[in-house]
Order: sequence, then structure tokens, then C-alpha cells
Amino acid sequence: MIIVMKPHAAENSIKAIADYIQNSGLHAHLSRGTEVTIIGVVGDKSRLSTENLISFKDVDRIVPVTEPYKLANKKFHPEPSRVRVGNTVIGPDTLTVMAGPCAVEGEEQLLGVARAVKAAGATILRGGAYKPRTSPYSFQGLEEEGLKYMQLAGKETGLATVCEVVSHESLEAAVKYVDMIQIGARNMQNFFLLKEAGRSGVPVLLKRGLSATIEEWLNAAEYIISEGNPNVVLCERGIRTFETATRNTLDISAVPVLKERTHLPVIVDPSHASGSYKYVIPLAKAAVACGADGLMVEVHNDPAHALSDGPQSLTFEKFDSMMGQLSPFAKLESRSFPQGEKTE
Amino acid sequence: MIIVMKPHAAENSIKAIADYIQNSGLHAHLSRGTEVTIIGVVGDKSRLSTENLISFKDVDRIVPVTEPYKLANKKFHPEPSRVRVGNTVIGPDTLTVMAGPCAVEGEEQLLGVARAVKAAGATILRGGAYKPRTSPYSFQGLEEEGLKYMQLAGKETGLATVCEVVSHESLEAAVKYVDMIQIGARNMQNFFLLKEAGRSGVPVLLKRGLSATIEEWLNAAEYIISEGNPNVVLCERGIRTFETATRNTLDISAVPVLKERTHLPVIVDPSHASGSYKYVIPLAKAAVACGADGLMVEVHNDPAHALSDGPQSLTFEKFDSMMGQLSPFAKLESRSFPQGEKTE
Amino acid sequence: MIIVMKPHAAENSIKAIADYIQNSGLHAHLSRGTEVTIIGVVGDKSRLSTENLISFKDVDRIVPVTEPYKLANKKFHPEPSRVRVGNTVIGPDTLTVMAGPCAVEGEEQLLGVARAVKAAGATILRGGAYKPRTSPYSFQGLEEEGLKYMQLAGKETGLATVCEVVSHESLEAAVKYVDMIQIGARNMQNFFLLKEAGRSGVPVLLKRGLSATIEEWLNAAEYIISEGNPNVVLCERGIRTFETATRNTLDISAVPVLKERTHLPVIVDPSHASGSYKYVIPLAKAAVACGADGLMVEVHNDPAHALSDGPQSLTFEKFDSMMGQLSPFAKLESRSFPQGEKTE
Amino acid sequence: MIIVMKPHAAENSIKAIADYIQNSGLHAHLSRGTEVTIIGVVGDKSRLSTENLISFKDVDRIVPVTEPYKLANKKFHPEPSRVRVGNTVIGPDTLTVMAGPCAVEGEEQLLGVARAVKAAGATILRGGAYKPRTSPYSFQGLEEEGLKYMQLAGKETGLATVCEVVSHESLEAAVKYVDMIQIGARNMQNFFLLKEAGRSGVPVLLKRGLSATIEEWLNAAEYIISEGNPNVVLCERGIRTFETATRNTLDISAVPVLKERTHLPVIVDPSHASGSYKYVIPLAKAAVACGADGLMVEVHNDPAHALSDGPQSLTFEKFDSMMGQLSPFAKLESRSFPQGEKTE
Repeated sequence: MIIVMKPHAAENSIKAIADYIQNSGLHAHLSRGTEVTIIGVVGDKSRLSTENLISFKDVDRIVPVTEPYKLANKKFHPEPSRVRVGNTVIGPDTLTVMAGPCAVEGEEQLLGVARAVKAAGATILRGGAYKPRTSPYSFQGLEEEGLKYMQLAGKETGLATVCEVVSHESLEAAVKYVDMIQIGARNMQNFFLLKEAGRSGVPVLLKRGLSATIEEWLNAAEYIISEGNPNVVLCERGIRTFETATRNTLDISAVPVLKERTHLPVIVDPSHASGSYKYVIPLAKAAVACGADGLMVEVHNDPAHALSDGPQSLTFEKFDSMMGQLSPFAKLESRSFPQGEKTE
Repeated sequence: MIIVMKPHAAENSIKAIADYIQNSGLHAHLSRGTEVTIIGVVGDKSRLSTENLISFKDVDRIVPVTEPYKLANKKFHPEPSRVRVGNTVIGPDTLTVMAGPCAVEGEEQLLGVARAVKAAGATILRGGAYKPRTSPYSFQGLEEEGLKYMQLAGKETGLATVCEVVSHESLEAAVKYVDMIQIGARNMQNFFLLKEAGRSGVPVLLKRGLSATIEEWLNAAEYIISEGNPNVVLCERGIRTFETATRNTLDISAVPVLKERTHLPVIVDPSHASGSYKYVIPLAKAAVACGADGLMVEVHNDPAHALSDGPQSLTFEKFDSMMGQLSPFAKLESRSFPQGEKTE
Repeated sequence: MIIVMKPHAAENSIKAIADYIQNSGLHAHLSRGTEVTIIGVVGDKSRLSTENLISFKDVDRIVPVTEPYKLANKKFHPEPSRVRVGNTVIGPDTLTVMAGPCAVEGEEQLLGVARAVKAAGATILRGGAYKPRTSPYSFQGLEEEGLKYMQLAGKETGLATVCEVVSHESLEAAVKYVDMIQIGARNMQNFFLLKEAGRSGVPVLLKRGLSATIEEWLNAAEYIISEGNPNVVLCERGIRTFETATRNTLDISAVPVLKERTHLPVIVDPSHASGSYKYVIPLAKAAVACGADGLMVEVHNDPAHALSDGPQSLTFEKFDSMMGQLSPFAKLESRSFPQGEKTE
Repeated sequence: MIIVMKPHAAENSIKAIADYIQNSGLHAHLSRGTEVTIIGVVGDKSRLSTENLISFKDVDRIVPVTEPYKLANKKFHPEPSRVRVGNTVIGPDTLTVMAGPCAVEGEEQLLGVARAVKAAGATILRGGAYKPRTSPYSFQGLEEEGLKYMQLAGKETGLATVCEVVSHESLEAAVKYVDMIQIGARNMQNFFLLKEAGRSGVPVLLKRGLSATIEEWLNAAEYIISEGNPNVVLCERGIRTFETATRNTLDISAVPVLKERTHLPVIVDPSHASGSYKYVIPLAKAAVACGADGLMVEVHNDPAHALSDGPQSLTFEKFDSMMGQLSPFAKLESRSFPQGEKTE
């Protein structure tokens, strides 16, 4: 950590800070410039609440030099992680496709979608049983009933399953039925849910918050890992910006940035990022081309009558076409679909 | 709701939509322009999942014409609401000041701050017992112990009390000890927490999410009210933008916009909005000048050694000075501090 | 400037940078921490292109410690500036109100508005002769004819005048007719126009760019001042964010932040910031309450038929009411309207 | 255009608007819902200033239904355009790579870079002679001298050339020396420069403004085309958001969105978008994968000593590697580098 003093800071202001640092068991290292003095803090910074140093007299700015996340940090874990989910693995060399309806609407509907996405090459079935909706008057999900259908569809097709959890109760229920739990964008800084997900030990798909920086996102992952659960997969799903042509703005650069900073797998959700089925295929190709370990895509048997997110869902035909188009891109990136590129 | 068709939409595309609307028990009203046809939907829109109409052939756009929130909507409740919190009331005519430390650090510390803010004219004591922190390695709060100190400080000084809740457990604990619960920015769309807050019946201070639109915020309030709890107070605390000179960007316009759209009281938190004690007083004056019903301000006995948010906390002296400066602004807005402008 | 090295940077990487700095005539000051080494650069930094140091091996980050703007910087010019515009002065102690139509539409229209705003207490007449419009098919302004009407209206009423310039030609014309030129948001980083405005010597109203940081804005002011023209007034007019309830988001915090960083006067434009006449008065009061030196407000004789920006224009009655309401707020801030609080 | 009235709007409010519309030579089409009435406006909307209708009594909202841009609109020109630049063509089937230094620093430097990028497969040489810099104290470019070097390097290597213009003077100079002019992000709404670029007839590379919506960007293109110059190429170069891990946020979705809305070619600049050479190659691959017609990439002989934008420049080796990696991605998209994939 570096403390930048104001120009012409008083000697006793500098001394007060240096003393405070020394008294906290750390070392203060002064560097006097022509205009400003800077103070480097050397030692274990967890010993002092650094942000408050800004309140000391004549301090201009505090500049952190190390990232607060350790377990998610590539510097301390250079090899890319692999995360096992049911009978499949997310990580380098493979391109994992998670697909399914936004919301589980019924047993038959889910089974139909599951069979279709399996046939096209997906390995993980997604489906919402607990839906966080902006308005209390929108469809809120089938809850535990939906989880049971997910388990059934998983068994029937051999697909692994992932479901969003939104509370203590839904998490407790979900771990009984599905292979992976998802923390959605709106709960990315619901730190109590993150800790519970950490204690569960179950693989976690952690979506980026609507306006979360990459650093905040990695700190959210750290909450899960620091509870003893290293099975975290990050999912870029678009951030909120001024642009309204798409539902969110897909921050595609997050993929290479994360690949540099963390060992955790990174997947991309072009459905939520764009909000329109028309843009899903080109964005999916872009995600693969820049190094993503997988994709999460919404697929629905009848988008026009879906209870949630119809506009951004692919039909079976479009999903099948997408998988066919992605295959050569995956090869260029030395990746293959986990269970062969396509069954049948 | 209005459906805007693409230029030269096929007749049978238009008919398909009109039929679908009629079959849903609503009326379709066609308006044919030189370039485009628009279809107005008349009737109870909760009968059809409107967003999916975008998936129909030749549809260009869907334009909602009524807000999804009803109970929070001024159109259906034109009189401004008053929310009773302990022995005080938030609403028109008064200017409520909530003040206290970011985090409760100990009994003595809290009591000291409580006495100081009471003496200066605050009527509600704020203090965090459960702290949502970006990093898992930062101080996370005293939890139930902190709530007990809040209760004690409330009794001792006669101040009403408000505390943030972040989970089912913390909510259950908080309602036993404090007069008002706060839903923080990071949980504004934690819909399960909102519903629980609604069922609790306890007054709720609902902070705006970091990147929540005003409409999403009012929908979040609707979650609480629709569970039978009308005692909601909104708190603008800055939104996330590209500007880094302040911690967040205070959206001061949200005050008059909310005054037009909702009957709920609106307060402003200049401490979190700016992230620096230096800007708190001018922003507090601005908030009063444009119609806020109150303020939430961080005050600490020793900001340089605070365990959280030291940089944005006012000292006792500065808080006292702020209250003195605010008094004539409040008068210009025909408001007074609830318990006299200032006790000794 | 501080160079933060990566953890475990090689000794010869550190040496390479230190040598490069020394060879540029500056001094390198090393501070070795347990994890990272930081290098402070002491001396006249204009001697080396600092951003490129990031390309050196093992460099993690470059942290600037001094602001690039000097002439606009309060550190080197602690007294607030006063800027004379025609027969009036913008600066501390006064509250300058610039008012008038978005676009000059004709001689009679402009004269009517000028008389009305003068009667209500404005001292500067605004009016656009060259209109930057998003679409080429929108009304683009009366150009030089509009400038002549501005001059006429100024003479007739005794108001000083301000007009936006958008190009070399319009600037050359404007300086012949009006007392102050305005650089609009879309041209805030049109550096060639800034330099020309600097060389003209005429007072400049510099609006903030739609997504300009405060630091970029002060650098834009520096372009003008560094050409020998210190007569710069800054105008906060809202920034672009995700919120669509208002046309832009008024960054009210920019007022106290600027008051800390620069000696230049700061005014606020609540009309463009909000895009709606309904929010202009509360935002104007907020601006005065937090220290602005003035306001720019759109006033139109017949907003419903204005050729540009009708929705955000005040009628004469509303403007008169606003001036009456602002007067006591100005007094609280120890300011007065330059020519008496209100004539007739 | 649709006018949405407030709930329970008075009959005479509705009539006033209908009359106004009829008097403007258009037709008003009323649709009365249970809660609100909407008024469709049928006819040539250029006849009335639509935004002002919001000022009429009881109007809630104005909803435009057709885009203001016509000449750039795919609806009226469904075939993708090809833009000839010197001896090469930008458009479908090809992948055009523009490469070169951020700033022209000297004759030898530029020639060296030109030869290297030509050898690797680029067909257009980029190089800045007029540099828009945030601070007036940064290097501002070699101006006309730089243009001459561009011309020379173009002749020597057979590369077409593109140079940014920032003013009337620089545009007049540039058209004498280079094959294509660039309007940079900071001038995207410098409407006078756009019009001049339109009148010049020279191919224009129009970069997206830092916070320009896609619609504003297409309107900026419309300014150029409506002056008689259809040779416009759009360049996505990142937008400004809250994320600071990259210099800007590459809005990759803009590529498929533009492909749906306009016939103009679209290229991507991963150098400015990310601000770091480390992310250029993955982002370039993503751009090709999602349908871009080309790329603009900064290449420098010695990034560590570049006078501008060193951190984001590729070395010759990295650029050559990028071109090799892009080639199979281009093939998958049925594109080839204009002059063979790679010359010796």
C-alpha cells in the first residue's frame, strides 16, 4: 500500500502516519519527491484498516498495490482449475455448453428441452426453479417442484444440472436435487448466500453482478472459496451501461482479463447479455474465439409462449445450428465439446 | 401496452398477434400508419406474458404504457405517506436525520456517538451490526451483539434505531432489537429478503441498488408493500457511473422524480454517495433544497480509526455544524427537525 | 509518479526502469516491500512519456501523483476566480442566472424572452444560433442571423449574451456579436476548438462532456487557459448513465469536487441535466445550496411549439417563480443576484 | 410516432393534441384503453417538432416508431455496402486489417512499421498526424509533416492509408495525402466536421463516441451520407463504463446489432477498446467470429518508447502472430484478407 501525501504536507503530518504504521507492527518507507512525499507500507496489511488513513492530516490518496483476493488469484495458483459437475468437467481443453429454459414450467416441457439440448451436444441442463423477477407480479418459479423436474430430466438424459438459488431455503433444497448451484447477478454481493454456497461444497456458477467490477466479482468468488469450496465457475452475463440496443452490454474483454487474473473457469451467457435470440449465435462464437471455457444459453420449446425471457431464447433448431457452427471455432481454440461434438 | 410492427409487416403476422391477444381475453386495437402498424392492447395485461410478443413474426418493439408497480404508485395514492419509526415520524413537514457510525464497534463507542448525534438534533440512530463487505477478509460486524448495543443506545438516548439486515437470520434478530430495518444497496433485488421484510411489518429503509433504475427501485418497494407492509422509506445513496472522483454518483434528480411517482418518503445518504466527509455537508444541503424528507449521515467518534468507512464519516463537530447549517434550509422547505431543531 | 512492479519482479527489470528514468534526467527512488517493489519518480515528469513505462518488463501499474492540469488547479491558484462577461461578473458572492431559449427562432421571439428573463432577475441571455443536433434532419439554427438577434436583444435589455460555437466559422462570427462563447458537451474534447477559444480571449462557458470525468474536464479548461485565456466558467449539465428517468444524470457532487480542485467558477444547467421542466426548480435550488456560482436555464415563450428542447423549457411564469424561490437560498449561501435580486 | 396520454386525461387535452396534429397536415389516430388513451400520428413526421408534444397537457410520453436515419438504414438499403479505399475494398467476404502506430513519429519509424504490417497481411496503414490528447501538455502530432510521411509510406508499400482529422484545417490537408479520413471518438458528434467529411467525398472511418448509443452513431453516419458521401465505415472502439480493468469496454454486441440495422461495413479496434496489448489478440478473434468486416490495430516498432499509446501497441512479432491466428477464423466466416492471407 502506498500513501500519497498532499504537496507540502507538514512534517508532523508525515510523522503521525509513519508512527501509526510502525505502531501497527508494519514498516513505513518514505520517498520524498520535489512536490510530494509518498509513504510505502511494508508488511502484513491485514493488521491495519487502510482506507481510514485517508482521514489523517495532509493525506491525498491511498493506492493499494496488492489484490485483496488470494485463493481466486492466479498469482498464487497459476494452473487453470477444472471443476467437476455431475458427470462432466468444466475447464481448459473442453467447451461446456449449459442450455435449457429460463424457467422450469412443467415436467414435459423440461424433458422436451433437455432431450433437444442433449441431442445437440449440451452437457449441462439449466432451468430456473426460483426466479428473481423485477416485479412481484411476474411468474416467480415452481420452486421445489421445479427442482424435482430438473433432477428427473438430468437422470433421464444423462445431463448434469444447474439451478439458481436465491435464499437459504432454496439453497438447502437445490443441493438435494441438482449438481451445481447458480448465484445470480442480483445476488453476487449477497455475502451470506455466498458463504452458504461456500459451506455447501457444491459446485457454484457465480454470475457477474449488473454493475460489479471484475475485482468485486473475484472478491465474491473469494467468499465462496474461503469457506472451503474451490469449485467456482465465473459467468459473464453482461453489465449495465447507457446502451439500450441490447438488454445488457456483454463485456467480452472480461474473458481475457479473467484468464490473466484467476485460475477459475470462465463461461459466457450471451442470452442474458443481449436479451435477444438474434444476437446469441454471433456472441457465442465471439466468446469461444476469445477463450471462454463454456457457454450458458437459453433454449425453449416455444419462445413465444415462455413464462420468462422468451425474447432471448433459442428454438431447438437454432440451438442445434449454433452447436454446429461453434464446433470448428472450438477446435481452433483446441477445445472440444465434453462428450463428443454432437450425439446422433 | 403497444405493439409496434415492422414496416410492411405481413397481414397474417398482424392477424396472428391480434388473435393471440383476443384469445387471452383482451382487445387488440389496430392503428395503421403509412409505414408501420401499431397494435394497442386494451384490458387486464396481467393475463398475458407481454414480453414474449416480441417473438411473434414481424414485431419490432413492445412499449409498456403503465407502470408495473401499483401500491407504491402516486397515481393510486396521491397523498404523501408518513412512516412511524419508534417515537418519530418520517414524512412531509419534517426533516428526519439518521446518524451514527457505519459499523457498531462496541457499547461505549456507540453510546458516545448516539449522545452526540442526539444532542445535535438527529432523531434516528444508525449503526451496522451486519456489514456487507466486498472482501471476506474485511471486518464483518458484531452481529447480534451489535444489535443489543443499538437497543441499549436507543433506550439511553431516546433515539429510534435503524440497522441493516442481510439475511433471514439477521432480519429475525434485528426485529427484536431495532425500530427500523434497512435493506442495503447490494440486496435491493434480493427478492426473498424483500418479501421477508414485507411480512415482518417493521418499517423498512430501502436503499437504491448500485445500478438500479428508479423503476426497478419502486418495484423493489412494491415487493415489500405487496406483502402487507406499507412502511417503506426510500434512500438515494448514489449510483455507479464512470466518474471516480466520488465513490458513487449522487443522483439528486431521483428526489424530484420520486416525489412525482410515489407517495413514499425519500431520504438521501450523502456519506455513501460521495465517499468523502468533505462533500457531505454541501450534498446534505442540496438534498434538503430539492425536497428530501431526510438524511442518513455517517458520524464517528474517531474517523481515522473507524473499522469501516472512516473516510466518509463526520466528526461530532462537523455533524453539529451540518445540523446548524441545515436548519434554515429546512425552514425554506417548510420542514423542521422532528424534535425541535436542536436540543442542548 | 509511482511505478508498481509485479510481485517477484526480476532485479534486472527493476534496474532497466531505474536506468531509463535516470537517463531521462530524473531520479528513481526504490521502495522494496515484502511482496512488491515500488519505484518513485522524482523530478520534472514532462521529460518522459510515463504511460509507456507500463510496457517495461515486470511492471504492474503506473500511478500518477500529480494532476496534469496546472493553470486550472486550485493548488497553484487558491483564490476563486471572477470572470467578467459584458457588464456582469461571475464568481463568489453572486449568483449568476443565464436564461433564454434553447434556439434563437426569430427577432421578436428572442426579444420577448430576453425582456421576461431580465425582468425576473437574469443577467445573461442564452440562445443557440448554431445547434448541434443528433439527426441531420432536425432544425440546425439560424446561424449568423441568430447571432445578430442576440446582439440586438442584449443591447435592448442590457443583458450580457452567451452563444454556443461549434466550429472555426461559428467562433469567428460569435466573437463579433456576443459577450461569451459556449463550448458544448459534444465539443468538450474538440481540442482544436478549445485552442481557438483560448486564443480568442473571449470568456468561455465550458460545458462538461456527456461522459467526461472531472479530470478530463479540467484538462479541457487547461487547453483554453494555456492559450492565454483565463476567463473560463465550467458548467455541469448532467452525465450519461444507465438511468433513463431523466435525460442525463445531474452530477451535483461535481460542484463541491470542483470547488476543491479548481479556482474557476462553476454553474449548473438543470434544464439539460433533467430534460424536463418539472425538475428544473428543485434542481436549481439544490445547485445553489451546494455552492454553485450560477445557473443556466432554458426559458421559452411557448414551450409546446419550440423548435428545440421544448420539454425542458420553463415558461415565463415558472422562471419568475424560480427566481423568487432561489433568492432566499442564495442569501443562505451569502450570494446575491448580480443586479439586485429582482427588478420590477 | 405514438403519444401516450396520462391515465384519465381530459377530453379537451386529447382534442387539443389531435387538432394540433391535423393542423400540421398529419392524421391523428386515437386508441382508447381502459386506463390510457394513445394517439398514433400518421404521415410525414418531419412536419412537426415531435418532442414538444410532451409539453401539451396530460401527455405522459412520446414513443418514436421509426428511426430518424434513412440513408444508413438497412431497411431502405438491404444489401451490405462495399467501401473502396485506395486499392482495396472493405465489405463482406473480406477481412480488412488496418494497422500502424498510434502517432506518426518520423519517416523512418513509419516506413518500418508500414513494411512490417504489410508483410504480415494488413492492407491499410493507420497513423495519427493530429492527435487529440486529454492534456494540452501531451504530444500533439506532427501534423502536415506526418501526413506526408503517410503518403510516402503508402506509395512505398502499396498500402492504402487512413489518418484522423480533427478540424477543418486538418481535413483539408488530409484529403490531399491519404486515402481515407478518420473521425475519432471525441469528434463523433462534431457535426460540422461530419458535414465537411460528407462534402469531401473521401471514404470516412467513423469511430463510435465514448458514450454514444448505436442510434446516435448511425445518425452521425447519416450526417456524412446526407452530404452526398456514402463511403462510411463504422468502427467500434469501446465505450465508457464503470469498469476500469480495461481502458474502455468493447461493446462486441454492437457488431451484430449494426449488421441488423445498417448496410455500412463495421470494423473493430481492440487496441483502444482494451488499452492493453495483452488483450488485443483474443478480442480481435472475437470480433472476426461475430461478423466484423475488419480490424484496426495499433502496431509499433518499440512500444516502450512510443510517444502515444505505447501500452496498447503490438510489436511486429505479436502482430504477425495475430494475423496468422486470425486467418482460420476469417475462413470460418467466409472471409479472406484482401490481398491473400499473407504476403512473404
